[in-house]
Amino acid sequence: MFDTLLQLPLFQGLCREDFTSILDKVKLHFVKHKTGENIIESQTPCRQLCFLLKGELSMITTSKENIYTVIERISAPYLIEPQSLFGMNTTYASSYVTHKDTHTVSISKTFVMNDLFQYEIFRLNYMNIISNRTQNFYARLWEEPVTDLRSKLIRFFTTHCEKMQGEKIFKIKMEDLARCLDSTRLNTSKALNELQDEGIIELRRKEIIIPRAEKLKE
Amino acid sequence: MFDTLLQLPLFQGLCREDFTSILDKVKLHFVKHKTGENIIESQTPCRQLCFLLKGELSMITTSKENIYTVIERISAPYLIEPQSLFGMNTTYASSYVTHKDTHTVSISKTFVMNDLFQYEIFRLNYMNIISNRTQNFYARLWEEPVTDLRSKLIRFFTTHCEKMQGEKIFKIKMEDLARCLDSTRLNTSKALNELQDEGIIELRRKEIIIPRAEKLKE
Repeated sequence: MFDTLLQLPLFQGLCREDFTSILDKVKLHFVKHKTGENIIESQTPCRQLCFLLKGELSMITTSKENIYTVIERISAPYLIEPQSLFGMNTTYASSYVTHKDTHTVSISKTFVMNDLFQYEIFRLNYMNIISNRTQNFYARLWEEPVTDLRSKLIRFFTTHCEKMQGEKIFKIKMEDLARCLDSTRLNTSKALNELQDEGIIELRRKEIIIPRAEKLKE
Repeated sequence: MFDTLLQLPLFQGLCREDFTSILDKVKLHFVKHKTGENIIESQTPCRQLCFLLKGELSMITTSKENIYTVIERISAPYLIEPQSLFGMNTTYASSYVTHKDTHTVSISKTFVMNDLFQYEIFRLNYMNIISNRTQNFYARLWEEPVTDLRSKLIRFFTTHCEKMQGEKIFKIKMEDLARCLDSTRLNTSKALNELQDEGIIELRRKEIIIPRAEKLKE
């Protein structure tokens, strides 16, 4: 269990001695979850760091006005939304549902601030992780424009994925997708079918499945 | 000078006593700059926190492939790119040119990490500032789609402004702007002229001036 925690970027570089002394002081909440459990609801307050130690989660994010929903598959080890613990909006951006039997561990914000931040390596790791996310999102806002429909579709997918790996599901009506791309329903449908023929996506009713997001960048 | 520093969100909440003891230890680099000086070049390494204490800066950001450039006017007190000191890409995203005679003060990364991070309030402020930026950029990526050209144009402007206040200049060719909006040159020109008639923007050759970005949100 502790070995898994030490694998997380947040704890990397921390010596085993420091880690043991942390574990002596910190109250860790270990929880086992069954498949299909909603462990975090979006828009609820984030008052702790929650680590996925074992298993898989579905990260579910819904756009403003509920126009579309994106589901990303997440594997352990993973740290859930470190950027939601601080700042002006300390609520979770996404919901998290267990996909397999999973183990999580949570550390309260109070403990993060009062104890973990005493360790230079921990605060440097945290700072690096959040800064990195800022840089990543910022870069997406400044990407060069694309105009052909195929590229716009791929840009729409990549803009809304946290990681460019693994399975993603986009729940969206064809007419809403057409509106997001500023195209017609018919042309959007054609572009989607082309991507399906190439094996990049699979089309279901009101759902687009991307089995391997890596392929979007090829 | 110190009062100006204490006004910055990064130092807010720090008591005068702590601040005095910081100033005893820290090497602060105070510099006076003349108008038109390029104090930071984009893509150069960020190895320090640079504070604008007095005067004004132009923050100049160029899109990938040099398609457009955005110039934002920034007034003191201001902290320059706190998110560029950590993370994977520790280079400045923008260039900064003094617009009036300005005063800046810089604190090296080493000092930030070894001394300032010893203060709980300082690291909490820093964490809040960066997390806030992450949340802000993330929210922009998930905004609801707009399809009419006027809204797309305004979205293009707001997406590329750090603050929704004050003067902004967009340097872009009409044909490139049309491409960014996925529209025609003629329709883009019409939409721009309508915004000009409403007093929201001013059109110059290859340049769009937004005198008050607040108006974009009205």
